[in-house]
Amino acid sequence: MTRRPKVAFLDVNETLSDLRSVVGAFEAQGLSSEHVRTWYLSVLRDGFASTVLGDNPGYSVIGEEIARSLIREVDPARDDAEVDDGAAAIMSAMVAAEPHSDVVPGLVALADTGVRVMTLSNGSADVARKLLGSTPADAAIERYLSVTDAGAWKPAPASYRHGLAEAGVAAADALMVAVHPWDLEGARRVGLRTAWINRSGARWPSLFAPPDIEVDSLTSLAHAVAQPTG
Amino acid sequence: MTRRPKVAFLDVNETLSDLRSVVGAFEAQGLSSEHVRTWYLSVLRDGFASTVLGDNPGYSVIGEEIARSLIREVDPARDDAEVDDGAAAIMSAMVAAEPHSDVVPGLVALADTGVRVMTLSNGSADVARKLLGSTPADAAIERYLSVTDAGAWKPAPASYRHGLAEAGVAAADALMVAVHPWDLEGARRVGLRTAWINRSGARWPSLFAPPDIEVDSLTSLAHAVAQPTG
Repeated sequence: MTRRPKVAFLDVNETLSDLRSVVGAFEAQGLSSEHVRTWYLSVLRDGFASTVLGDNPGYSVIGEEIARSLIREVDPARDDAEVDDGAAAIMSAMVAAEPHSDVVPGLVALADTGVRVMTLSNGSADVARKLLGSTPADAAIERYLSVTDAGAWKPAPASYRHGLAEAGVAAADALMVAVHPWDLEGARRVGLRTAWINRSGARWPSLFAPPDIEVDSLTSLAHAVAQPTG
Repeated sequence: MTRRPKVAFLDVNETLSDLRSVVGAFEAQGLSSEHVRTWYLSVLRDGFASTVLGDNPGYSVIGEEIARSLIREVDPARDDAEVDDGAAAIMSAMVAAEPHSDVVPGLVALADTGVRVMTLSNGSADVARKLLGSTPADAAIERYLSVTDAGAWKPAPASYRHGLAEAGVAAADALMVAVHPWDLEGARRVGLRTAWINRSGARWPSLFAPPDIEVDSLTSLAHAVAQPTG
């Protein structure tokens, strides 16, 4: 990239956490690996719909509700207490998800370039802290931020402005890092630069303006940030 | 219900159209029946994210983009022209989807109660017209409305206000009918009454305020509207 950002904001769900690590918890409730994606997309559906309506619901509240609905769908006979227990088990697994293999070395290398590193999640700050807190990346993270304190979920402008205000930097000095195009599009509208972590070799959707950087891992991102091109 | 509405607005995707009727088109592209739900949830994700950002994208534009991404995911070797052809085939199947079995008799019975019946879709009006145009329900539909003319997707307030303005009725005289809780919640915030078509025996999510009416089919809805309870 052409000029090193002062702060990098890292999305958390899927960008840092590897949802494949929760498949076992879904299977223990009679669900399949494909239900992990259904769960996540359904959380975004209800979270984004709430955002459209001006609400700022708790990520885990929606997550647990969706888990209950999926369990009831595959096992209508299960009683309410068992459904609640199953949903709680799934949410516990979400909180105990593992980071992708590039995350810890990538975050450490990113901080080593001199860029301040913060997480900015639609989930709670505690989940991000739990994901990285016992790893060497914890020392690389200056702040764990959540939209809980922003008034609105990403991709609403208020969510990114919350990050900028907490960091005390201008939008042009900030880089939003995510695997999700919708997240980068929201950040771009506020004036942040954007880095797309594309681990799966996907195509950028034509619906949104292209990101400033596309890399296949957080370690590659640290390399790109360390070597300004102009 | 306690007082008969003057107008009923019917959601279209899944409320009227049966997405099970497009499974074959997905399978012809190497996708599974579960991908139908993934497709639909992904369309809502990008459509709602765009709505949060103040945009009003075309439903079919997003739908085709999502179809391309799913085809590439299951068959990375397919070339761009083949991917485009596959996505176009899926979108053609969406436009040719069949109504649920209760839809045509339900809409006819609903109109027979004296309630004016209109569709109000995040998709195009043409898709709704194609779904019902060759059935006896077509004569029951006064208008086929789309958020294309509203400036914003449901559940944004502008989408329901567009329906009210086109119908020339006050919110309190209108009933929004949908299978999707997020749609009914958006309508409720604008002051419409709400009817949840719950064909699958699902639970209403605690995230949103309960609907005014819950029925298992559109024929049951017509019965409920015909027999005011107070």
